[in-house]
Amino acid sequence: MKPYIHKVKYYETDRMQVTHHSNYIRFMEEARIDFMEQADMGYEKMEAEGVVSPVMSVTCDYRKPTTFPDEIEIEVRALELSRLKLRMAYTMRVKGEVVCTATSLHCFLRNGRPISLEEQFPAFYQLLKDSME
Amino acid sequence: MKPYIHKVKYYETDRMQVTHHSNYIRFMEEARIDFMEQADMGYEKMEAEGVVSPVMSVTCDYRKPTTFPDEIEIEVRALELSRLKLRMAYTMRVKGEVVCTATSLHCFLRNGRPISLEEQFPAFYQLLKDSME
Amino acid sequence: MKPYIHKVKYYETDRMQVTHHSNYIRFMEEARIDFMEQADMGYEKMEAEGVVSPVMSVTCDYRKPTTFPDEIEIEVRALELSRLKLRMAYTMRVKGEVVCTATSLHCFLRNGRPISLEEQFPAFYQLLKDSME
Amino acid sequence: MKPYIHKVKYYETDRMQVTHHSNYIRFMEEARIDFMEQADMGYEKMEAEGVVSPVMSVTCDYRKPTTFPDEIEIEVRALELSRLKLRMAYTMRVKGEVVCTATSLHCFLRNGRPISLEEQFPAFYQLLKDSME
Repeated sequence: MKPYIHKVKYYETDRMQVTHHSNYIRFMEEARIDFMEQADMGYEKMEAEGVVSPVMSVTCDYRKPTTFPDEIEIEVRALELSRLKLRMAYTMRVKGEVVCTATSLHCFLRNGRPISLEEQFPAFYQLLKDSME
Repeated sequence: MKPYIHKVKYYETDRMQVTHHSNYIRFMEEARIDFMEQADMGYEKMEAEGVVSPVMSVTCDYRKPTTFPDEIEIEVRALELSRLKLRMAYTMRVKGEVVCTATSLHCFLRNGRPISLEEQFPAFYQLLKDSME
Repeated sequence: MKPYIHKVKYYETDRMQVTHHSNYIRFMEEARIDFMEQADMGYEKMEAEGVVSPVMSVTCDYRKPTTFPDEIEIEVRALELSRLKLRMAYTMRVKGEVVCTATSLHCFLRNGRPISLEEQFPAFYQLLKDSME
Repeated sequence: MKPYIHKVKYYETDRMQVTHHSNYIRFMEEARIDFMEQADMGYEKMEAEGVVSPVMSVTCDYRKPTTFPDEIEIEVRALELSRLKLRMAYTMRVKGEVVCTATSLHCFLRNGRPISLEEQFPAFYQLLKDSME
């Protein structure tokens, strides 16, 4: 999987002159959507399948400040995968240096009810498994 | 009608250490929603009536910078009112000094089709008329 | 300490028609700043003392969706307090029901170097201690 | 000059399931910064020259809604150029169809005082002139 690149926008900085910490949660979403697309589980496909994937929780560790116009390279992988839940991990780097590490926990719902990725989307499930190594 | 108060948030500032100019468009929306509620045309009522009011255009003149933790007082009034369109005007002040003036143009739609405020919501129409003076 | 109220804004919702999850990190900041002010350690005072308090990490558990125009009541307290670090906890409720719980980790810096709250701001330190009970 | 591409992010949509109108002001900034870079007047150069270019006003006409994951192509050009002011125009298209047109007015300041682009940055001034045709 190719890492995702987010170029920090001017409007994402704050009066400390660095990227406001809330924006990293958005970068995670961007990188996750990109990862899903690369895994052939993009938004249109999920929508066509009637599946949504809400964020149940996030953690975010800020290691070094970034700012406009830094390019943040975001590596995404599955961290934990159970019958009904998926935890993803994010490593964000600027010029090779880690600036932020993060995780997010997700379930997958159809008609508001949890579904098993392994049964319903075995290829995607396998790809997540592979990304854990 | 009482003016709306927006307290500038830390995360609304940018690396110039002032409120990022895009946020004023959001303050306009907050003040407009508050105005509508005061005019008994709040969100729940509009929704119950199946009416939506998209923004067709905005203009915004930035007079003086503001920053966290300024309190911006926003005065809203109708500027132009025709059969199908409503232009609203906003005057934003910090400690009595004008920091921004703005306008927004709206139509009112039910099932995607324009409706006449004067016919459908005569009391609201009259109140808008009165706010123009 | 009085809880902080955040009224969800229209522009804070997303196409799932709920408050976008990234915004809760911003609500935490708003509530924390309000807590600090109530604790007589407001922004102006910190700035006058040359002290900044960066966010080192956050965690956020989304329990129930919220949306415009919900009023979120946010209770803030100290969760852990060591010589150089402070972890704060947030409980967010809508109409008494918990919608989100979160934490944030902070240090306090003067001229880029960590300071001890207990030594430098004993009254604030004591108040944090008290909020832990 | 090459147009700028903004891919609409999930978090830029609102509960009407379209891109929130305030975000277009941010897209303008992104496209303008990209235009300046292409014109060899990028952020680092401006900063090295001690020049800032605040936004004095904006106008924005919303023609058609956009949403995640649309790709908005933004064409930028100078619209008016006087001794001290520059008005830029933006045409935003999705798949060739105009979705938004906008303008922004700027001055250029060094040490808080207006400077003449024509005298101080003649090559950039000429390029702006050329983009007007």
